[in-house]
Amino acid sequence: MSTSLKIYDTTLRDGTQGEGISFSVTDKLLIAQKLDQFGVDYIEGGFPGSNPRDISFFAEAKKLKLTHAKLAAFGATRRAGVKPEEDAQLRTLIESEMPVLTIVGKTWLMHVHEILRTTPEENLAMIEDSVRYLVAQGREVIYDAEHFFDGYLDNSDYALRTLEAAARGGASNLTLCETNGGKLVPEVHKIAAAAVARFGRDKVGVHCHNDSGLGVAVTLAGVDAGASLVQGTMNGYGERVGNANLVTLLPNLFLKMGRTANCAKNLKELRDLSLFFDELANLRPNPKAPFVGQSAFAHKGGLHANAAQKVARSYEHIDPALVGNRTRVLVSDMAGRTSLTLKARELGIELDERLPAMKGLIDELKEREFRGYEYEAADASFRLLIAKWLGQQKTFFDVENYRVIIERHNNQIWSEATVKLTVNGEAMHTVAEASGPVGALDKALRLALAKAYPQLQTMSLRDYKVRILESNQGAGSRTRVLIESGNGKKIWGTVGVSDNIIDASWEALRDSVEYMLMQS
Amino acid sequence: MSTSLKIYDTTLRDGTQGEGISFSVTDKLLIAQKLDQFGVDYIEGGFPGSNPRDISFFAEAKKLKLTHAKLAAFGATRRAGVKPEEDAQLRTLIESEMPVLTIVGKTWLMHVHEILRTTPEENLAMIEDSVRYLVAQGREVIYDAEHFFDGYLDNSDYALRTLEAAARGGASNLTLCETNGGKLVPEVHKIAAAAVARFGRDKVGVHCHNDSGLGVAVTLAGVDAGASLVQGTMNGYGERVGNANLVTLLPNLFLKMGRTANCAKNLKELRDLSLFFDELANLRPNPKAPFVGQSAFAHKGGLHANAAQKVARSYEHIDPALVGNRTRVLVSDMAGRTSLTLKARELGIELDERLPAMKGLIDELKEREFRGYEYEAADASFRLLIAKWLGQQKTFFDVENYRVIIERHNNQIWSEATVKLTVNGEAMHTVAEASGPVGALDKALRLALAKAYPQLQTMSLRDYKVRILESNQGAGSRTRVLIESGNGKKIWGTVGVSDNIIDASWEALRDSVEYMLMQS
Repeated sequence: MSTSLKIYDTTLRDGTQGEGISFSVTDKLLIAQKLDQFGVDYIEGGFPGSNPRDISFFAEAKKLKLTHAKLAAFGATRRAGVKPEEDAQLRTLIESEMPVLTIVGKTWLMHVHEILRTTPEENLAMIEDSVRYLVAQGREVIYDAEHFFDGYLDNSDYALRTLEAAARGGASNLTLCETNGGKLVPEVHKIAAAAVARFGRDKVGVHCHNDSGLGVAVTLAGVDAGASLVQGTMNGYGERVGNANLVTLLPNLFLKMGRTANCAKNLKELRDLSLFFDELANLRPNPKAPFVGQSAFAHKGGLHANAAQKVARSYEHIDPALVGNRTRVLVSDMAGRTSLTLKARELGIELDERLPAMKGLIDELKEREFRGYEYEAADASFRLLIAKWLGQQKTFFDVENYRVIIERHNNQIWSEATVKLTVNGEAMHTVAEASGPVGALDKALRLALAKAYPQLQTMSLRDYKVRILESNQGAGSRTRVLIESGNGKKIWGTVGVSDNIIDASWEALRDSVEYMLMQS
Repeated sequence: MSTSLKIYDTTLRDGTQGEGISFSVTDKLLIAQKLDQFGVDYIEGGFPGSNPRDISFFAEAKKLKLTHAKLAAFGATRRAGVKPEEDAQLRTLIESEMPVLTIVGKTWLMHVHEILRTTPEENLAMIEDSVRYLVAQGREVIYDAEHFFDGYLDNSDYALRTLEAAARGGASNLTLCETNGGKLVPEVHKIAAAAVARFGRDKVGVHCHNDSGLGVAVTLAGVDAGASLVQGTMNGYGERVGNANLVTLLPNLFLKMGRTANCAKNLKELRDLSLFFDELANLRPNPKAPFVGQSAFAHKGGLHANAAQKVARSYEHIDPALVGNRTRVLVSDMAGRTSLTLKARELGIELDERLPAMKGLIDELKEREFRGYEYEAADASFRLLIAKWLGQQKTFFDVENYRVIIERHNNQIWSEATVKLTVNGEAMHTVAEASGPVGALDKALRLALAKAYPQLQTMSLRDYKVRILESNQGAGSRTRVLIESGNGKKIWGTVGVSDNIIDASWEALRDSVEYMLMQS
């Protein structure tokens, strides 16, 4: 039995139909290259007949030098009663110049009647003609059978005939789509097996949705039944509850079902890949994502400090390193010195558990975390806290006050910040302006320190994230700000929490500057 | 075949082991009553032998008058070499005075050796003795077989013998636990079927975790194999990737698998129940949660928005009303006149597709969405936009300028806002202060309008969300602010986008006020 699969990524097409997901053409090109590096076999880049922006994408994409993946453009079968060569939508597909063209067609007779408003026979001709026409243009054609499982349950004979029509036309793969995400595992297995029995493993694929919370499970069932092409999206992006999540599918397929694919060799990049997509999509990574989530292998301290290696591993279903993740020790209200030591070691700091300062540090950490501080992405703030308790903290400057003014006048918006501080005994009072208040504050602060600490010139704000912690407190909500700074060589993160969004930003900015000074 | 199941909720015990979840005793009592109202059969309230806080919970909980559910206390088998009546942990279980006691025991020989450090025979005695002892105290005892599936794969004979020991002791149910969440559907089905074959449907339950993204799927497989008791947590709370999610399980079981349970009659309360739990746990509801998520029945993409009612329903796997949810139409950049008309209709506005203004409206919508505006949670801003294009927009006030000052002095933080505007020909110039800049601006604005529009007094800011749209632009990033306002009767959302976080907030505030004035 062949264990080799083709992985077909539709993040850039089906994935973008999800609420809140929007990629620019530049994003999409970056994504295509990233997916190619990771090793997927197909990248469905868009729907040119529906999305003008995708036409621009394909115009640029055809210049990409991909190492393995084949780019696909998505479309539909020709319209009823129209010759394929006269169908505008098929023409946009051809004009995309993509080597692979994936077209969706109707399987369910109700849709043939009510949506296409045509006859069952014409629908079969639409499928066969369209596939044949595109194949004749020298493209690989994949056929997506919409609502295949519902259509099969309604009329299994007709459903299989739609696949036959596509096969006759020369489709390289017949992908069974579980379009409304409602089927359970046994049904999907049975129906997929019927298609595999008729057309062979090499010819059948699955494309499922997560409406019943079973997107991954039914896809695995399809593979178990013999399907050799798997469609899905990164992080399960997609309409409604999303498409089958490739990030969850791949480890299950490669580590537990004995399957392989070109990207299997890069499985340890999975966590980074998942984070890359959330970053670009500007979504908060799901800490509870299977395999790659921050909590996926997060255990309470006692387990690992106390249990033998072998036994500790039995509590984890896989070795987290295989997907680029790691075991984490939770600093929870059950955590003690051992957890903190492990946590510090994670950052390369060796803490002596027996130090009296440890208790104070743990207490402050718990209190801060209770107030909303989060140190996972703010290693520099965490190090400053440790330095303080180890008596290693230096005072680089003394801030007396700051003021930020935001003014809107005649539809112009303007921000000015002033900072007053003492450094090396000298009083500095600076002002700066920027489009936004935090930018202005950042500039004013570094201006005030420029003379005493010229190395701050190389420092810049790279990333700025805001999270309202208790949004239902209206505008008085506690806010957490995470800042990422860099100096061209290193990158570090800091955090600030306050009811005042500017003050939270100030705190993170201050930590960032102090950290850089501590390092130099 | 009996289709009746018992639903066993462990949100208050296993669910609370998850990162970031913490319920007070008061919360827990509220939750227990809520779960009882919903109709679950068992409520596992806590782990008194491990969590002193749970002892307080049970002391209070025994006074609750529940209508159907039975409260359970969780614990473990007695220690090796100790008589059950002399085991302190078993004693706390009895002292909880709960009618149901659930104890977990070891199935996997490796754990018997390495963790319990005892013999296989003693472990069987521990199981049987402990169950028998608790039953003799007049309690119903449920036995949780830890790591059952891994244990069975290691030594199926021994694994079944652990269940036999519990059965001999008088356990009412033998729950097979998939403790590390690593098994796939076919394996769980097979092993559960073996247990059912040996002990009968009425005696077997399943308790699964979501580490492989299959928590729901394997639980359904267990039921398919004959298990009649289902353990899970609300919203899938729990350690690591969480427990099997009851909110996803129940609709699948009742609507698709022909099963029933006491709570099936309340299925339409499911969405509210899910939101209740997130509210209490202070977690953001997952919009992509199967069945109950805000996006679960939200359709985008021309393919779906065009279809007729009957056909439209075929794109939904169930009628959303069955779980207390509803269909939503998304406004996207693929929206044409039809999508826009549907969206407006959802909001109670009848738009004539043929109006010339429609093109302008669609263009502005696309342009704004391109700049980062999002209208899904900002229906009021959307309505204002429509009103503008339909020539229905009124000018309620004319803003000349605003200024916001944030000052930090001697570790005190202070925000003051001034607003200058004209209303009904009269110039108003107001000032207000608050802990944060947006709060101050909100107050100053409404102060300026209070005389002309006294109804604004009832208005307040309920929720405030900030999203940095391109966080890698550092502090100059475009920011989107979403505000939810209310006046005691209605709730509405507005949006603002700017490079300046205060100005984005201003825009959303302004829309909010204008919308309220438009409605009155």
